[in-house]
Amino acid sequence: MIDTLAIKRRQFLMGSAGLAGVAAYGMPAFAQDGGKLPAYASWKDADDLIVHTDQTLETKRAAQGDALVTPSSDLYIRNNLPAPSEDIVADRDAWEVQFEGFANPGSMTVGEMKTLGVETVVCVLQCSGNGRAFFDHETSGSQWATGAAGNVVWTGVPVRVLAEAMGGAAEGRQWLTGTGGEEIPAGLPPETVQVERSVPIDAMERAILAWEMNGEPVPLAHGGPLRLIVPGYFGVNNIKYIKRLALTADQSPAKIQQTGYRMRPIGVEGDPSQPSMFEMSVKSWITGPLEKASAGKVQIHGVAMGGISELKTIEVSTDGGETWTEARFLGPDMGPYAWRPFALIADLSAGQHTLASRATAADGLSQPEDFPPNERGYGNNGWRAHAVDVTVS
Amino acid sequence: MIDTLAIKRRQFLMGSAGLAGVAAYGMPAFAQDGGKLPAYASWKDADDLIVHTDQTLETKRAAQGDALVTPSSDLYIRNNLPAPSEDIVADRDAWEVQFEGFANPGSMTVGEMKTLGVETVVCVLQCSGNGRAFFDHETSGSQWATGAAGNVVWTGVPVRVLAEAMGGAAEGRQWLTGTGGEEIPAGLPPETVQVERSVPIDAMERAILAWEMNGEPVPLAHGGPLRLIVPGYFGVNNIKYIKRLALTADQSPAKIQQTGYRMRPIGVEGDPSQPSMFEMSVKSWITGPLEKASAGKVQIHGVAMGGISELKTIEVSTDGGETWTEARFLGPDMGPYAWRPFALIADLSAGQHTLASRATAADGLSQPEDFPPNERGYGNNGWRAHAVDVTVS
Repeated sequence: MIDTLAIKRRQFLMGSAGLAGVAAYGMPAFAQDGGKLPAYASWKDADDLIVHTDQTLETKRAAQGDALVTPSSDLYIRNNLPAPSEDIVADRDAWEVQFEGFANPGSMTVGEMKTLGVETVVCVLQCSGNGRAFFDHETSGSQWATGAAGNVVWTGVPVRVLAEAMGGAAEGRQWLTGTGGEEIPAGLPPETVQVERSVPIDAMERAILAWEMNGEPVPLAHGGPLRLIVPGYFGVNNIKYIKRLALTADQSPAKIQQTGYRMRPIGVEGDPSQPSMFEMSVKSWITGPLEKASAGKVQIHGVAMGGISELKTIEVSTDGGETWTEARFLGPDMGPYAWRPFALIADLSAGQHTLASRATAADGLSQPEDFPPNERGYGNNGWRAHAVDVTVS
Repeated sequence: MIDTLAIKRRQFLMGSAGLAGVAAYGMPAFAQDGGKLPAYASWKDADDLIVHTDQTLETKRAAQGDALVTPSSDLYIRNNLPAPSEDIVADRDAWEVQFEGFANPGSMTVGEMKTLGVETVVCVLQCSGNGRAFFDHETSGSQWATGAAGNVVWTGVPVRVLAEAMGGAAEGRQWLTGTGGEEIPAGLPPETVQVERSVPIDAMERAILAWEMNGEPVPLAHGGPLRLIVPGYFGVNNIKYIKRLALTADQSPAKIQQTGYRMRPIGVEGDPSQPSMFEMSVKSWITGPLEKASAGKVQIHGVAMGGISELKTIEVSTDGGETWTEARFLGPDMGPYAWRPFALIADLSAGQHTLASRATAADGLSQPEDFPPNERGYGNNGWRAHAVDVTVS
């Protein structure tokens, strides 16, 4: 299996090469590196992105580098439905959200929310399928390698502050349910396509409704004027253009909640009894070098995240996992939900080297060598699959 | 004096209004908001910048908002000489720096530096003349209000690591001297225009040669391929396109060091006996609201910095400094040289309110009510001059 993985790994390494090889694995076709940016994201840096489709843009692995914060121009996009019209960001403070399931429900504009409370949190935004390309079984969905992830600064009102303002939860509420403002394509039953997700109500303690991303109003492409941010949770739970926030007794009836984003064995249909893609896990990957290096001292760098915990250590191997050396984190620790860049300067002899990284969080959890294959290719945090084969000369 | 200041304050508040009034004060003309971005900075966000001249772009006060990190597209520019050609960033790793005044001096490329060490630091970049517009005496130089400052992430090699690699300092060295790679205009004696600055050698412990800014290669407009960053020091000391780094016995003979950037009384010529613009001081300013607000709860926000110390507290006054209330910092503390956004939600009645902020650093120093007027209008961190008059209705 490792040899097969090594082949797949090389194909996806630079986020560009190996389309012929991919086709041989029977994966769905996707646009090659250099595809045209869709209009709603035309302000992004095309050189640093892989355009899979108009709804799925991936950051190139090399471009992730050792960034403390991912520049907005490089941040990945994964939309379940087309982005709404630019009209919705014409008057950002006027955007209105319906609140339900509180003692005193009602509606509130962004302008009103800004007078209730404000908080800033740095957290990893990561698609559930990030790392899917490294599984060696066939999976539908975008073939993300490492670039459906970024470290992002969000500013907005804490949901717990809104909840207090509305007299707290109504009785029997177990879930925090957000509904996206996407237009539902005509002729489709809403629940089959509506972007509506429920997360356990405890997440309310750390969730915010964000009007700013990386120090600027949240771009439409990333869910502006207002996005639900649930720090530590996979991307799908961070509802864009949020128009309704409800405390509910049950999970959303939407397909994306009931059967979508469920972790299950290969060949099994999704159903609500399976784990949903909620909290993220400890993970890391090397972002350079990825292909070649000169013999002697080499700076190896990458990014690491604890999932829902601060990081404890990051180790790097230059021999495919036989031996490990502790690397150093770069820059300030920005909290349990943020990623940390890391670096190790290693002495590499001429020849082939398999470079791997392995993060351990403060909660004691480490990346596994391999993450179990699963039907949708979710949650891959195995260190071996994320290793890179580098030719040193 | 306070009434006069209030008038000047209003003129510069939004970074745009009041040109007629400025002319009345006899200040040099400068381009109005909406001026065209120069070619080397054409990638910046024109909406968030004031174009004073091709060499001086200021971030609008409102655009500074509560950003944890200033987006590169919004960061101010102040060049003492025109930026070199784009050619110098064509092959970044090939850029070479001469090192002098070490036991084993020599030259090194950026590519080589990357194999020696790497570190990330977040620090405020601020022009010595930031706040100059708030003095009520005539000053030459750009009429910066608050926007010749930003909070920036830098990644590069620590100078102390380079020094170790070169066997340490040669005997009798007291200064760390950096020389910029700008072209010297023909016919001018180099020392009159050369961008070369010396800082006390102790700064070597925290200085880095940075190849990355905000997670991307340092843009040419900000000194790429390589910039000397001296955390806690005013902008002028952070040499762009650095081509020579020397440990020297004396300060640079360049005019910019000998007589420029010297703090002195009004009417006095610059000379080396006066304090040089080295370390920055504790400072803060409100970035919103700046003109109008609705009566009731209002979110007041801004940014604060400790200079060379962590911040301890930030206070906000809504009555021109009669009474003060402690505000909250937003987001993670990124170290002693970084700024921190802050916010306070206050209840404001209809009428005029003078909003002010006052930061206190962990070293015990606070912003003064007024900073002494000085010949070049440097170092203004007075809280009263930075206050804003807001109409609440």
